[in-house]
Amino acid sequence: MSLTTSDAQWESRVRDSFAKQPTMQTLGITIARLSPGTIELSMPFSVPFSQQHGFVHGGIVGVGLDSACGFAAYSLMPSDAAVLTIEFKTNFLSPAKGAKFLFIGNVIKPGRTITVTEATAYAHPDDTSPADLTRPLAIMTATMMTVLGRPGLKG
Amino acid sequence: MSLTTSDAQWESRVRDSFAKQPTMQTLGITIARLSPGTIELSMPFSVPFSQQHGFVHGGIVGVGLDSACGFAAYSLMPSDAAVLTIEFKTNFLSPAKGAKFLFIGNVIKPGRTITVTEATAYAHPDDTSPADLTRPLAIMTATMMTVLGRPGLKG
Amino acid sequence: MSLTTSDAQWESRVRDSFAKQPTMQTLGITIARLSPGTIELSMPFSVPFSQQHGFVHGGIVGVGLDSACGFAAYSLMPSDAAVLTIEFKTNFLSPAKGAKFLFIGNVIKPGRTITVTEATAYAHPDDTSPADLTRPLAIMTATMMTVLGRPGLKG
Amino acid sequence: MSLTTSDAQWESRVRDSFAKQPTMQTLGITIARLSPGTIELSMPFSVPFSQQHGFVHGGIVGVGLDSACGFAAYSLMPSDAAVLTIEFKTNFLSPAKGAKFLFIGNVIKPGRTITVTEATAYAHPDDTSPADLTRPLAIMTATMMTVLGRPGLKG
Repeated sequence: MSLTTSDAQWESRVRDSFAKQPTMQTLGITIARLSPGTIELSMPFSVPFSQQHGFVHGGIVGVGLDSACGFAAYSLMPSDAAVLTIEFKTNFLSPAKGAKFLFIGNVIKPGRTITVTEATAYAHPDDTSPADLTRPLAIMTATMMTVLGRPGLKG
Repeated sequence: MSLTTSDAQWESRVRDSFAKQPTMQTLGITIARLSPGTIELSMPFSVPFSQQHGFVHGGIVGVGLDSACGFAAYSLMPSDAAVLTIEFKTNFLSPAKGAKFLFIGNVIKPGRTITVTEATAYAHPDDTSPADLTRPLAIMTATMMTVLGRPGLKG
Repeated sequence: MSLTTSDAQWESRVRDSFAKQPTMQTLGITIARLSPGTIELSMPFSVPFSQQHGFVHGGIVGVGLDSACGFAAYSLMPSDAAVLTIEFKTNFLSPAKGAKFLFIGNVIKPGRTITVTEATAYAHPDDTSPADLTRPLAIMTATMMTVLGRPGLKG
Repeated sequence: MSLTTSDAQWESRVRDSFAKQPTMQTLGITIARLSPGTIELSMPFSVPFSQQHGFVHGGIVGVGLDSACGFAAYSLMPSDAAVLTIEFKTNFLSPAKGAKFLFIGNVIKPGRTITVTEATAYAHPDDTSPADLTRPLAIMTATMMTVLGRPGLKG
């Protein structure tokens, strides 16, 4: 699906909002690629966010997926909108083992109030190799809501 | 439902496994209450895990809920089992605003291979008040799997 | 949670809308109990909606749960609103074996645009016994949307 | 992903199991295409399974999606296995308006015990046109379980 945004400043709006989320910095998540309705986020492996087997904690994989869904949706929203996660669901396919991780988020169905999104998590086997796109770690579907006119909730 | 566990050491097994998860320590999550099939986790508010409006990031709420579901299920498993999250789904009801947070996880349906769980997140308005149980922040349903005979994946 | 509706005609509005859904008649689903934000639906076992083991098809259980969620939400909506299912998620706990079935739907969190609901399915062992509330067959969480100002989509 | 099945009789096994589900006949669902790990199901529009706006009931769309997921998973299972739906989650994207409907189910991740699947629903605008693949009506992710050694639950 070819997706368009009515906001000419969509890219700086997304990057500004992303920069304001302390959780992204804490987890070391960065924007690897960005286009209207699609975002790719990168996250390094880090022991503080692992579980007892040395993999990334599944809930943290969920944070990456939720963020990819949310910012993909946000990229298509009007300039004065805020985005809220209504719900997400994740299926875990493989242990989150890797040197770094890639979260690809896409808008499946944009809407004035409700935007439906999906995201997939992948692992890079080491710091320099590309992510192994043949072996998804987890998939999320999420519903995002456009919120207008609520100051304090922007971005 | 009255739930029973066949493992007399269930409590130390759960507490040991919990203590081995770096993510729990990083987020400051502690066990507030524990019984077979039920766990209550407590997490302080912390700016590094907030989003741009000053609330806890929804994905981090998901980490707390997933952990509550996982350890509730794990408490009923055999002594040599490991627990894996197959899937979780969360609906967000209210912004995660508070001084600290409570995640209550319950086993709905135990099983030899598959355990179905649910968890609810609540907020404490300040550090000394109890959690406001009349205003859930988010609810999760999750499917957990008992894994036997895979060394390295225990707990 | 005590739920209130602003529409004095809420009950006739729900019953009229229910009566207009051919799928409810086809499956033999009836309203067993109704209050603002809660509904109980009853469905007989019927071979045409079974699967190969003689139980009700899981997808059909999903129809009952979705309907319970939708009408519970609809009972709290304004008089000129229509209700749309945004998403639902079901966990299956036990085979849908019984003479008839009970679907109890509740609003967890009402809202102007978004209403979050849950429903549980139970079985009656025979035609005259009450449903076995100690053994849920399946649980659903669902997000419902209030739609205003779209003629043709009412109810 | 290239998927393989260890059962040389996989196709007749799937078709036989499908033929034994009364719900498929009742809804007029037929197998349009079948390969290991993928199935396409076709369902005509029918007033008895509609809601009050003249579209197919969302829950019935769920039956088609669940069936597509279940039989896609079943096609990869051993010859003596039965398939159980552990959970499914559906996001609704557009009203189910059409002359007939297509449900495409795929295995995302096969496994010995757990198989993760997804399915998408599409509409045919009339009886002779192909389904409009540019406008999905609904998407499902579902977890299926392989059940061995339980006579009476086969298929």
